[in-house]
Amino acid sequence: MPVFSPASLTETTASIFAAAGMRVDEARVVAELLVEANLVGHDSHGVIRIPQYLGQVEAGDIVPDAAVEVVHEAPTLAVLDAHWGFGQVAMSRGVDMALEKARATGMAAISVRQANHVGRLGSYVERIAEETAVALMFVNGAPVCRMAPWGGREARHGTNPIAMAFPSRSGPPVVLDMTTSAVAEGKVRVQRNRGAEVPDGWLLDAEGQPTNDPNTLYADPPGTILPLGGSLGHKGYGLNVAVELLAGALAGAGCLAQDRRFRNGALLLVLDVEKLVGLDAYFAEADTYIDFVKSAATAPGVKAILMPGDSERAIAEKRKVEGIFIEDETWAQIVASAAKVGVEVSG
Amino acid sequence: MPVFSPASLTETTASIFAAAGMRVDEARVVAELLVEANLVGHDSHGVIRIPQYLGQVEAGDIVPDAAVEVVHEAPTLAVLDAHWGFGQVAMSRGVDMALEKARATGMAAISVRQANHVGRLGSYVERIAEETAVALMFVNGAPVCRMAPWGGREARHGTNPIAMAFPSRSGPPVVLDMTTSAVAEGKVRVQRNRGAEVPDGWLLDAEGQPTNDPNTLYADPPGTILPLGGSLGHKGYGLNVAVELLAGALAGAGCLAQDRRFRNGALLLVLDVEKLVGLDAYFAEADTYIDFVKSAATAPGVKAILMPGDSERAIAEKRKVEGIFIEDETWAQIVASAAKVGVEVSG
Repeated sequence: MPVFSPASLTETTASIFAAAGMRVDEARVVAELLVEANLVGHDSHGVIRIPQYLGQVEAGDIVPDAAVEVVHEAPTLAVLDAHWGFGQVAMSRGVDMALEKARATGMAAISVRQANHVGRLGSYVERIAEETAVALMFVNGAPVCRMAPWGGREARHGTNPIAMAFPSRSGPPVVLDMTTSAVAEGKVRVQRNRGAEVPDGWLLDAEGQPTNDPNTLYADPPGTILPLGGSLGHKGYGLNVAVELLAGALAGAGCLAQDRRFRNGALLLVLDVEKLVGLDAYFAEADTYIDFVKSAATAPGVKAILMPGDSERAIAEKRKVEGIFIEDETWAQIVASAAKVGVEVSG
Repeated sequence: MPVFSPASLTETTASIFAAAGMRVDEARVVAELLVEANLVGHDSHGVIRIPQYLGQVEAGDIVPDAAVEVVHEAPTLAVLDAHWGFGQVAMSRGVDMALEKARATGMAAISVRQANHVGRLGSYVERIAEETAVALMFVNGAPVCRMAPWGGREARHGTNPIAMAFPSRSGPPVVLDMTTSAVAEGKVRVQRNRGAEVPDGWLLDAEGQPTNDPNTLYADPPGTILPLGGSLGHKGYGLNVAVELLAGALAGAGCLAQDRRFRNGALLLVLDVEKLVGLDAYFAEADTYIDFVKSAATAPGVKAILMPGDSERAIAEKRKVEGIFIEDETWAQIVASAAKVGVEVSG
């Protein structure tokens, strides 16, 4: 299994995207975000996406050199149109604008439309928290439907993730990045490929009955993924609807009701800590609270209470030392698609 | 069992709070919000609170005629100090200010500190949605801890609710109002009082093992309520932490790490639809999406797909006709506490 340092994997990835028609600096932005996803253990959002993205470029679905347009701007607002470029490029621009506006006014709302896949949300919000601001991010993704509404048995919802991040002075930022469906489709696929059952609370079959068989999601008619919440799934369903209305309707990116080309819509809210409450007041409360939570006695078999983001950080520390392993099959696909754009890479 | 029209119950409730020392207009605000909670079926947040609030006034914990102070104000921000008055008064003022600011600038963040119980969150956000704005509201409540962190077996968290509301042109607003713990403590108490078990995914005993026995929550040492999410409870835990950091640390109301008098802290974010995306563009997406979700085939035993807020609205329609029933025991307590402030009420 090939193993890479984060720096060399970033270099290679950036050179592939540049060869595919991206500006060199923007290719680097996408490469850094993909490799960061690998680094923190979210391999599903890492360099495994290279062949998919290159296929989309080839098909004309991603415009690799599209310029991000600021459609509308006000002291606290900006509406960005990615013009079907890479989502990571538009979203990174949105983060920069949000931070600048929030620093000036206290808060900012940035929406991103006509964007391709923005990748792992946690990267964006964590970067904001490192600048002593709080970030809330909501993303939808037309037209992929896998989740049924609460009480339903036909898919009407995407995974509709939420990410939030909070600065801490005594430790790293708190970083939450979660789907509002019970799980993402990829996790069901992994279980199917392993020939394993899925846990309770993940799936319904096409009749709307709970099932542990991952194959039902790919049957005809297909089953559905449940909303987050188990027996209280009406809450996860409600959150999922809220994300769709925030990222699809309010951000102007479009909801998934209609048959459309793939896109991510995003709404990013940023609140400046200094302007809202003052840094010292915030950190006094936040750091004391984090210590208080971590001081809870653990349940059997649990070593320590973790804050959101801690497990990703632990994986990153390990991979910075050991390197990032890419599975042979994934690497072979990356090598093959890189060759198509004239880049020769080796493991 | 006494039954009341919403109007007469509001009148009675307002007269009790006025007699307890509130300004007449502010007493009416609290009365309307309590009765609205009864009307939509959330009786735990309705007039059952009258004896509790009057007890807090008597003990000096609620200052009935406290004036809400605007500690800090900017075009998009306001920090309100309730000076230990009724939470409903400060929160209602916050809603007014948020709407005015969001209309002018596109968005607003309002924080409320040193407030008593704000009551049912859904009322505030729904009112904002009726004014064609989107609301996100986060509330914490020191010092009541019932929920353990994910992996823990000691309580470190409140129920930390989230509420969001979205306007719709073709129907009523979408109103989400949910705890980020699996359930609120009151639901466990109801099961205990009935001698019934609680469902899976609600409780851990003091050893951190899942249990269906509601008595474990009140044992010594006590059990804990699980976060929202069932087997994926790390997500509900993450949301709960996020709410505490938003409402406690960022809003400056204080987190529940420290031993403090009872308070609700709140952060309210309001986004103006017209300023962000335009009303027509928003409604075209939102209404089409809502219809799409509702068109899903239902699971066995389910009559219709509901949007968040629909079930409360159905109860309200029924109770507007049939009246609001108050249990004998609850009514007797209200009558007794009203008598203490010199108000004679009858069922």
